[in-house]
Amino acid sequence: MGIAIPIETSARHMHLSQKDFEVLFGKGASLTFKSELSQPGQFVCEERVAVKGPRGIFENVAVLGPFRSETQVEIAMTDSRKLGIPGVIRQSGDTKDTPGCTLIGPEGTLEIDHGVIVAKRHIHMTPVQAIQMNVHDNDEVFVIMESYERSLIFADVVVRVHPNFALAMHVDTDEANAFANENHPTGVILKLFGGRTYNLQKWAEELQNGIHRL
Amino acid sequence: MGIAIPIETSARHMHLSQKDFEVLFGKGASLTFKSELSQPGQFVCEERVAVKGPRGIFENVAVLGPFRSETQVEIAMTDSRKLGIPGVIRQSGDTKDTPGCTLIGPEGTLEIDHGVIVAKRHIHMTPVQAIQMNVHDNDEVFVIMESYERSLIFADVVVRVHPNFALAMHVDTDEANAFANENHPTGVILKLFGGRTYNLQKWAEELQNGIHRL
Repeated sequence: MGIAIPIETSARHMHLSQKDFEVLFGKGASLTFKSELSQPGQFVCEERVAVKGPRGIFENVAVLGPFRSETQVEIAMTDSRKLGIPGVIRQSGDTKDTPGCTLIGPEGTLEIDHGVIVAKRHIHMTPVQAIQMNVHDNDEVFVIMESYERSLIFADVVVRVHPNFALAMHVDTDEANAFANENHPTGVILKLFGGRTYNLQKWAEELQNGIHRL
Repeated sequence: MGIAIPIETSARHMHLSQKDFEVLFGKGASLTFKSELSQPGQFVCEERVAVKGPRGIFENVAVLGPFRSETQVEIAMTDSRKLGIPGVIRQSGDTKDTPGCTLIGPEGTLEIDHGVIVAKRHIHMTPVQAIQMNVHDNDEVFVIMESYERSLIFADVVVRVHPNFALAMHVDTDEANAFANENHPTGVILKLFGGRTYNLQKWAEELQNGIHRL
């Protein structure tokens, strides 16, 4: 029945550059390891930062390590409404022309003029797993998520392939709430129609018109 | 491209029996019309009731009219966690063996021993529309919902057909948050595989094994 991909929920969090971290936590401060994440080398830090927008603030937002070259704040679409910051869906790292926000740490405050994104849902996998599932880096696929009485098919799911990745699909809290609170949710890739609902719909109509047969 | 079905979001609300309403608002009290809903004859009332569970309470939950023969409280799955009440997915009216809650009105409090549901997503339509879309009452279908960078296909969507219905798909707030906040979202029915992801997945695997051709 296809390879079961663990579906993990990312709550709002941020990645910080060392420079920005030192503005918020003081010169020479360093990340304090709290717990591992599923992706090798990635971890949750003890440090917390407030994220402020024109309409609201979230206190105690998690900082993930290690440092990145550029600061990036990842929020859910509902968070964007509470903050009053436009929710711009992007892949991690693709922060050009995204909105900024105010970050408030214990030792300083920082205005970033871009870097706030709603992470586009994606699947991490190794090159071997990509071969097994017959997909390539940056492919878009459907993912079927079985959930009692409310199964979903996520379209527009980006595949990310790297030797250091562990197999996991990442969705945000809004997306996770839509399929109810299963304990260990998994999904299966459906590699059809380029992961695009438009193509699926077109095919279904052609099917009705007798162009294809089931 | 198929008939565009307006997708409407139902926030938590309740339908009350006249008897229960009078416990909460006083003997002889009546529903006060506030605004119309899309389904003919249904309306939002001025009256508000608190819904209380073992873990939390929601104040000011909307009461919909007219009266029903039985009281029913409809919440989202995330609401169920905040209240500490199991989230049981059911069609409207199917409240046997569902959890209860405490309802608190200005004139009285009521313990109901069942009637709290998470509404199963569904589409209202007229018999003529059902013919146009080639579906029947109680069919389950997929609904494709196009949304920039986060399109979804809802599985397990029940079709409800009645002359008094207006065409609309109803989802709860959790389901609505998963596709971002479009202004006038619409979906299109995909009538395949009985609306079941399991069947779609099985077919996709048969396709990969060369049993079908695209």
